Amino acid sequence: MKIALDAMGGDHAPAAAVHGAVWAARDFGLTVQLIGRPEAIEAELAKHATAGLDLPIIPASEIIEMHEHPATAVKNKKDSSMVVAMQLLKAGGSDAFVTAGNSGGALAAALFGLGRIKGIKRPALSTIFPNDSQHGYCFLLDVGANTDVRPEYLVQFALMGYHYANQVLNIPNPRVGLLSTGEEEDKGSMLVQETAPLLKESQLNFIGNVEGKDIPAGLTDVVVTDGFTGNVYIKGAEGVASMIQKMLRREIEKRPLAMVGAVLARGAFRALRTRLDYREFGGGPLLGVNGIVIVAHGRSDAYAIRNAIRVAKQAAEKNIVGVIERGLNESTHGQETGSANE
Amino acid sequence: MKIALDAMGGDHAPAAAVHGAVWAARDFGLTVQLIGRPEAIEAELAKHATAGLDLPIIPASEIIEMHEHPATAVKNKKDSSMVVAMQLLKAGGSDAFVTAGNSGGALAAALFGLGRIKGIKRPALSTIFPNDSQHGYCFLLDVGANTDVRPEYLVQFALMGYHYANQVLNIPNPRVGLLSTGEEEDKGSMLVQETAPLLKESQLNFIGNVEGKDIPAGLTDVVVTDGFTGNVYIKGAEGVASMIQKMLRREIEKRPLAMVGAVLARGAFRALRTRLDYREFGGGPLLGVNGIVIVAHGRSDAYAIRNAIRVAKQAAEKNIVGVIERGLNESTHGQETGSANE
Repeated sequence: MKIALDAMGGDHAPAAAVHGAVWAARDFGLTVQLIGRPEAIEAELAKHATAGLDLPIIPASEIIEMHEHPATAVKNKKDSSMVVAMQLLKAGGSDAFVTAGNSGGALAAALFGLGRIKGIKRPALSTIFPNDSQHGYCFLLDVGANTDVRPEYLVQFALMGYHYANQVLNIPNPRVGLLSTGEEEDKGSMLVQETAPLLKESQLNFIGNVEGKDIPAGLTDVVVTDGFTGNVYIKGAEGVASMIQKMLRREIEKRPLAMVGAVLARGAFRALRTRLDYREFGGGPLLGVNGIVIVAHGRSDAYAIRNAIRVAKQAAEKNIVGVIERGLNESTHGQETGSANE
Repeated sequence: MKIALDAMGGDHAPAAAVHGAVWAARDFGLTVQLIGRPEAIEAELAKHATAGLDLPIIPASEIIEMHEHPATAVKNKKDSSMVVAMQLLKAGGSDAFVTAGNSGGALAAALFGLGRIKGIKRPALSTIFPNDSQHGYCFLLDVGANTDVRPEYLVQFALMGYHYANQVLNIPNPRVGLLSTGEEEDKGSMLVQETAPLLKESQLNFIGNVEGKDIPAGLTDVVVTDGFTGNVYIKGAEGVASMIQKMLRREIEKRPLAMVGAVLARGAFRALRTRLDYREFGGGPLLGVNGIVIVAHGRSDAYAIRNAIRVAKQAAEKNIVGVIERGLNESTHGQETGSANE
């Protein structure tokens, strides 16, 4: 299996990307294709023991920066790591692509280079969100690809999320919840009120509307929402977790006894941090495009990149694109049969 | 000053409501009018020392329950505590009203009984949100009154939030941020992209778009958003804080040394809990209706009710309805002058 990695993407590229690639190649026995500026990549590779590992460099001279306008950047930078990666993926030269770069850029490059899965109206960005369930996480989409959506897009997000959670995250018959302001059917925006009946009719395991507090509580396995709400939600959660950590540290530092206590409780704090650590989850797939693209956090360090490559491998092994295609055909077929019977 | 209290509203009514009323009457030297079923209220009053306190009972035989459809309940239950309270407020028999009951019911009862402030298109529910700033909190609206909004509503929410934060929360020239998916002007939903230029033109201290993570980080004093996003956001934050607390407790309980540590760090944990405790903030005003209505959390205990009554007192002292009226006139006047000059 060959995973293409954007060696130039992310706040700590190329160092973190190359280090993560070496780590993943060793741990998972994969070929990791390093896409970017050869001199920069070679300089990083020289810092690691790479004997016996397959880490080919695929040259790309340009970089889509974090602040750039995605569509314009993709159009103008034909030799950027993202655009080159999509060509490679499309040509079958890679099984999946991982990037910690500009997520809007990844979306634009994927739409331009790979196109959508036939029948999918809009691709969605997704993320793994830690929760207090048996699995320890749920799957949330869209988190930013589409700020304005229609009910039929949300139904497709639900279908893609269901299959991803089932096949790649190994959650049997995942529960699908629609994010709203209350469980009752008459609550929520017009969008939610139009979408819920469509999800009810679907063959997905739709458990109804869920509230913001139900997600960390672990009441659903897949959370479906528009990219505006999803983006605000996950950044809010990240901000709250970070605020709590800072405030607690400050309160502890004010109290000498509490500082001793914190040393004794170090193991518990560490275990909590691991459970909430985005790096453990690696990255979320960009679902609905015609290829496997994993978007990692811009802040990703080597460990996060290593894990994002693991996610890409799992998605490729399960052929998630084929699974979504099949799921979509079945649901469309079901609807057509339904209509014919009416 | 007379504050009317919904003695029948909230998960722990009437016990928590009556206890909170006694507490507030004593601490703030107020008259607290207890609205609800006289026998139930009297039974609770008998549990407290009320000598010298002014706690009149105003009879109302019905209750708007938590699960009821707000508009229908308000229409059918003319003798409910909420409907009776709004009549009292409108007639000038009270300076403000506090309820921990069905927030949609409070909104419907207020619209029906008080109406809107002249010129205000939609009222908004608000909340105080803890953050890592000097003040320790910011002001967020709308958190659920309007799930679907227009740019001009958001501009009015910003105006109401600005004046509330300034006058009642004592934040000088509060920074106003519009919740979005990125700081850049080309990010966010169509709604946000249409609203930002209007806020820029306003005389409010608009600092631009803010992300979900910027709110707990304390980068803004007033957060403006639609009631769908705001509701999902605050419930998400509450859920994440509660998840972290539970997970940490579980990790500590697994480790005997950590349990000793937690005892030593008890003061720090307690200080953190106080900073994040919604009960300290009491409740958020329902802004834009023609009277002072404070909506407290449904879970409110006596301490939260006491503090919600304090908030009502502060809002009445500052005449927040008059302040909003004046702010609205000034902004409209400014706009008219602007148009005349064009």
